[in-house]
Amino acid sequence: MRLGMFCAVGALLGAMSGEARAAAPSAYDAVDPFIGTGGKGHTFPGAVAPFGMVQLSPDTDVRPFKQSYDWAAGYRHDDPTILGFSHTHFSGAGHSDLGDVLLTPFSGAVKLDPGEADKPGSGYRSRFSHDGEVARPGYYAVTLSDSRVRAELTAGLRTGMHRYTFEGKAPAGVLLDLRSSIYNYPGKVLWSRVRVANDGTVTGYRETRGWAPGRKLFFAIRFNKPLVSHALHDRDEAIVYKGFRQPGRSPADKAQLEGRALEGVFEFGELDGPLIVKVAISAVSEDNALLNLDSEQTGFDFGALRGSTRAAWEQALGVVELDAPAPMRTSVYTALYHSLIAPSVFTDADGRYRGPDDQVHKAEGFTFHSTFSLWDTFRAEHPLLLLVQPEKRNSDIVNSLLASQRHSPYGILPVWQFHGLETWTMIGYHAVPVIADAWLKGIRGFDANAALDAMVKSATYAPYGGLGDYMSLGYVPIDREPEAASKTVEYAYDDWTIARMARALGKEDIARTFEARAGNWRNTFDAKSGFIRARRADGAFRTPFDPTAINYGSDYTEGNAWQYSWFVPQDLSGLIKAMGGDAAVVKKLDAMFEYDISKLDYSHAEDIAGLIGQYIHGNEPSHHVAYMYSFAGAPWRTQARLKQIVDSQYKPTPDGLSGNDDLGQMSSWLVFTALGFYPVTPGSNEYVLGRPFVERAALNLPNGKRFTVTTEGLSDANLYVGKVSLNGRPLERGFLRHEELLAGGSLHFVMQAKPNTSWATKPQARSMSRAP
Amino acid sequence: MRLGMFCAVGALLGAMSGEARAAAPSAYDAVDPFIGTGGKGHTFPGAVAPFGMVQLSPDTDVRPFKQSYDWAAGYRHDDPTILGFSHTHFSGAGHSDLGDVLLTPFSGAVKLDPGEADKPGSGYRSRFSHDGEVARPGYYAVTLSDSRVRAELTAGLRTGMHRYTFEGKAPAGVLLDLRSSIYNYPGKVLWSRVRVANDGTVTGYRETRGWAPGRKLFFAIRFNKPLVSHALHDRDEAIVYKGFRQPGRSPADKAQLEGRALEGVFEFGELDGPLIVKVAISAVSEDNALLNLDSEQTGFDFGALRGSTRAAWEQALGVVELDAPAPMRTSVYTALYHSLIAPSVFTDADGRYRGPDDQVHKAEGFTFHSTFSLWDTFRAEHPLLLLVQPEKRNSDIVNSLLASQRHSPYGILPVWQFHGLETWTMIGYHAVPVIADAWLKGIRGFDANAALDAMVKSATYAPYGGLGDYMSLGYVPIDREPEAASKTVEYAYDDWTIARMARALGKEDIARTFEARAGNWRNTFDAKSGFIRARRADGAFRTPFDPTAINYGSDYTEGNAWQYSWFVPQDLSGLIKAMGGDAAVVKKLDAMFEYDISKLDYSHAEDIAGLIGQYIHGNEPSHHVAYMYSFAGAPWRTQARLKQIVDSQYKPTPDGLSGNDDLGQMSSWLVFTALGFYPVTPGSNEYVLGRPFVERAALNLPNGKRFTVTTEGLSDANLYVGKVSLNGRPLERGFLRHEELLAGGSLHFVMQAKPNTSWATKPQARSMSRAP
Repeated sequence: MRLGMFCAVGALLGAMSGEARAAAPSAYDAVDPFIGTGGKGHTFPGAVAPFGMVQLSPDTDVRPFKQSYDWAAGYRHDDPTILGFSHTHFSGAGHSDLGDVLLTPFSGAVKLDPGEADKPGSGYRSRFSHDGEVARPGYYAVTLSDSRVRAELTAGLRTGMHRYTFEGKAPAGVLLDLRSSIYNYPGKVLWSRVRVANDGTVTGYRETRGWAPGRKLFFAIRFNKPLVSHALHDRDEAIVYKGFRQPGRSPADKAQLEGRALEGVFEFGELDGPLIVKVAISAVSEDNALLNLDSEQTGFDFGALRGSTRAAWEQALGVVELDAPAPMRTSVYTALYHSLIAPSVFTDADGRYRGPDDQVHKAEGFTFHSTFSLWDTFRAEHPLLLLVQPEKRNSDIVNSLLASQRHSPYGILPVWQFHGLETWTMIGYHAVPVIADAWLKGIRGFDANAALDAMVKSATYAPYGGLGDYMSLGYVPIDREPEAASKTVEYAYDDWTIARMARALGKEDIARTFEARAGNWRNTFDAKSGFIRARRADGAFRTPFDPTAINYGSDYTEGNAWQYSWFVPQDLSGLIKAMGGDAAVVKKLDAMFEYDISKLDYSHAEDIAGLIGQYIHGNEPSHHVAYMYSFAGAPWRTQARLKQIVDSQYKPTPDGLSGNDDLGQMSSWLVFTALGFYPVTPGSNEYVLGRPFVERAALNLPNGKRFTVTTEGLSDANLYVGKVSLNGRPLERGFLRHEELLAGGSLHFVMQAKPNTSWATKPQARSMSRAP
Repeated sequence: MRLGMFCAVGALLGAMSGEARAAAPSAYDAVDPFIGTGGKGHTFPGAVAPFGMVQLSPDTDVRPFKQSYDWAAGYRHDDPTILGFSHTHFSGAGHSDLGDVLLTPFSGAVKLDPGEADKPGSGYRSRFSHDGEVARPGYYAVTLSDSRVRAELTAGLRTGMHRYTFEGKAPAGVLLDLRSSIYNYPGKVLWSRVRVANDGTVTGYRETRGWAPGRKLFFAIRFNKPLVSHALHDRDEAIVYKGFRQPGRSPADKAQLEGRALEGVFEFGELDGPLIVKVAISAVSEDNALLNLDSEQTGFDFGALRGSTRAAWEQALGVVELDAPAPMRTSVYTALYHSLIAPSVFTDADGRYRGPDDQVHKAEGFTFHSTFSLWDTFRAEHPLLLLVQPEKRNSDIVNSLLASQRHSPYGILPVWQFHGLETWTMIGYHAVPVIADAWLKGIRGFDANAALDAMVKSATYAPYGGLGDYMSLGYVPIDREPEAASKTVEYAYDDWTIARMARALGKEDIARTFEARAGNWRNTFDAKSGFIRARRADGAFRTPFDPTAINYGSDYTEGNAWQYSWFVPQDLSGLIKAMGGDAAVVKKLDAMFEYDISKLDYSHAEDIAGLIGQYIHGNEPSHHVAYMYSFAGAPWRTQARLKQIVDSQYKPTPDGLSGNDDLGQMSSWLVFTALGFYPVTPGSNEYVLGRPFVERAALNLPNGKRFTVTTEGLSDANLYVGKVSLNGRPLERGFLRHEELLAGGSLHFVMQAKPNTSWATKPQARSMSRAP
């Protein structure tokens, strides 16, 4: 009782202290969802609840697949028109898909085709301006000037809600274009259906052959006003067999239509208030889409749904309290916002979901999440979620990975999964470090032995990515498997995390096997050149070798030897030794950051953005590299590089992300880095200290404890950490242990203009030094 | 107890008396499934259980959709090669689809394409001969001479089983071709998948755009021998986007494949016994296909499954006992066999099925059946099932129709449904007479009020087939809706059955409404020409008028004025009066049967076969017409016509059906006619007496009673009925009441060479005379 009182008072004081400083906007108000919607960020500005199944957002264009990269989120901030609002979007993906169930309001004569952006009135798309365009967590609004409609969007966990206010007495209409798809190309829609019930409810589905094969997306739509008329159109002109006809002579008579190019037109006449359109999706069935629709308790009350989602965001964002200069505060809160979108909830209201076997399952005791961009997110996104989300979210994520493995026709964990389906994109088996990191950091609520078994199965499935050869040769041979150098080092790291978890579970034989495999990085390291390089099956390194070359199907994955040669997070001291020691490594790191790239052209390669020499912050292989200096005994170099990176790669503007946000990984990097520490080696339970970018941060941890970071002397001039104290005592090492975070406490940085070249430089002061 | 003893003794005596006569083969052995597999019958010779979900049968060819008509059942008796064995087939349909999950055995190097029938060895198809080809109910066997395999098939309710005996030491292989489809055309397969589990189980699905839109068919396959190797192929050469690749570099490494043109190759090496392949299908999911597979209790015991299906057939066929000349006995038992195939069970072992809304439902308290060729089968197939199948089968059928109406996006009863999906083929709402007839004949176990409501909804859904105009004008206008004359008369009959059921339920208002509508046939009858003719919306009959013209989209459905002018089964006395009375009608009937068609060419129209003048026995509108003479007071003319029809339209040979069997309708006509009576007007509870073609028949009715038909003087020369007695008393009327059948008893015909022109000629002796 006394403790409870104390906690409540503590929370109140915390809140008051927040308010006391509060010239600054709330965490919620500090978020700017437009960040990343221009440039290479690939984020979307629309409405989404934390980890929400629906991402309701404007699409400014949908492009054929060879042009689709820049429109991966459907919206580009510099586009002049909006097609409409669709219900599924990736946040910052490097590949694209989704854009399901596009709705657009219209008044008067309907136009069935989108038309061209530079020809106003040529189609249903409408011009818009950023004046009056509003994006808040869970809310988006824009005025469609050609359509003369104010459109507002909000979203709950499984539903999206549109509020369309038509100008004056203009008759209200809504067009549904089931052809429209992000990553659009002929034949993408395999089949679709739309039906209109007597009560005006619209349901349907479409099955697409996109990034994921044969993806089924069901939907249900209800309007707050009675339907005056409707028409269903099949725009497919290349039908081999038209079949017999369902009842209804004209589009206006039809109650249902199937085909590959369907549109629905729904008209409501003159309204005396806004038209509310409520939409739910499901991967299970139309019935389940209806169930999801009706499970949202807010009826047609737009304000109520917006309010409940706002409350959810306030709670989720409030876990981190920040005092920082306004631009940094906006950047970091927006980064936190972007870190809390994926993986997304994928179970319907009845607990059912579609798994990677394309079968419907029921999640017992957990909520199935999907959209796993694991090659990106094992690095910082998942470690961040362990600190800012309840244990249940993290065990849900692990249980989702394990359920996926159980359902997988291959018996392995997800690689890049969305909407329950495997895409086989990128490399590695990085669900493994996600699970190991969660277990080692104390997440429970899943079957650890089953998890270890799933991890081992994934690491020993020979047909996957050259694993057979990797197991027999100790490396992936480039003459049998592309991107062999990257695969070898990533497998070796993943293996190390299996060994760590196996040891924690007392499975010594597994631990030893995978500890040995963790050393496989050495088999692909070329001591002569000092680079990680691809070998052939006969043992020779592949020639010619150009450490600057970036090509698809090359020795590396979305990168070259410069970026990939640092990927040994499980044994950085071993790597440094192999590279010739601390001085050689610092020199090599400097050479990387200062590489003259003016004569190199990487424009042919996607996802290569945010270059600082050969350091490519816009893509993940570089994400831990600035922290490498600390491992080589030069933490002040890390501190300076972090400032360089943060200043050049993040801005609180639409083009403020230098590369794809990759489902929160770019953003999570910033959240950690801003707080002064970073999980270079998930699975180690250590965070490498960098330098903070905030004056004060408080982490309200899931265990109820509070960990505070404070910074003295934060300024552009003070690039360097002078000294650090933990809970009031000097901290001489350059890393923090997870247990120290969990215990609550305070970390204090003192910044200064000159490098402190003696702090945390000794081997045992470095992370992963294996000294106590 | 005493009664029980008595019944048992009775049954025993029945059996003994059967044996005593038994130079004749058993009912089971009398069936020849080859009947109808040549000519226009469109039946299949393969293995099926009574009302079985799986119809496992050889496909001799699959043709593009414009040539598909003749290959509607996959097999043509005169074809020289077999492609393989697929698991779904219509029995005698006029339109085609199905042919799912084609398997074919091979030895040695696999050929992935079917090749050409006239080039042996050009593909996986194999030559075969009818020597050694065996077809029995539930069993089929053939020797594939090129493949050097003896292939045997059997089927349970939801599974098919293949037994492949390879010649000598030839290595065993099985090819799965998921491209192959009856009614084949580019783009038909929308999407498909095949996966191979570690234990050698193969599962998958395909979604096709065939006769039914977006039909999903899942399957599961288990082999009795371990898989030595497998390969999965995608033969699609026109893939826009190939996507990322699943694990497995070569077809032999792949555990799963998705696409539109998939094949699987499964190899088993040298075997010391036959290879057994067990296959189940499901419309719900792959998991449910596995459930169905494992629910069949016979494991890999081919003989046991064959035996249990044989027992099921013996029970089903044994309901009718027949003494007749051997060819007639074969024809009639085969007709009974063909009457017991559809509607087929469509629920999985867990009671789930896919409905006309494409959603998965669970059947509570009944077994969902599908494949409803209602325009055909309301006439004699469903009335026959009421006499030869248990009440549960018939209530299951009604409950399936009602569930379909509940799930229908249109809220109406099925028109032509298969695999749960509506095809909108043919005209009318003939689920209505099926339900009314069942109710009026005493079938219970369904909600009669809900049924009446569903019937009314179906009869008043304005967008369907001109029903809006029919309701306002009293007929379907030909300038707004094709086949308007046929639609008007069929709607009017269906309406009459609603009135009958409504009256039985005491719903007088509904009864009166639909009784009025039942008279709508008069609005499309042209007294001047004496034909049913199509009218325009302005009331005028459409001109020019040619009563012999048969064209698609004409005034009539698969027919002309000659056939359609008799379709007023609810008011034949009214029709006869309108046509000028008995003599005029007899003359018109004779004119129809004796029409010189030598100068007419109907080769452009499908389903026009079995012509006797303008009487077209190969299609349903004529089916009751020979019985019309009796309504006009000339039953001896009916008797002679029946002999003419039976002799010319049915033979115990592959080309023994003059037209499509239409899911049992052609066959049910023969069963009834052979027994001496026919349900001209389902819903009337009356059967018109024709003349028998058997010496003795006993119907073991579902209520446990036994109704016997005996014939004295059966011979080719004795065309005419001399006298009839019922239960030993002379029967002066020309019809039988359903209650009389149900009561059990004996009907005795005495045949003679000369017409009896006084028997059953008086108005009150005629069926539907409304005299007591």
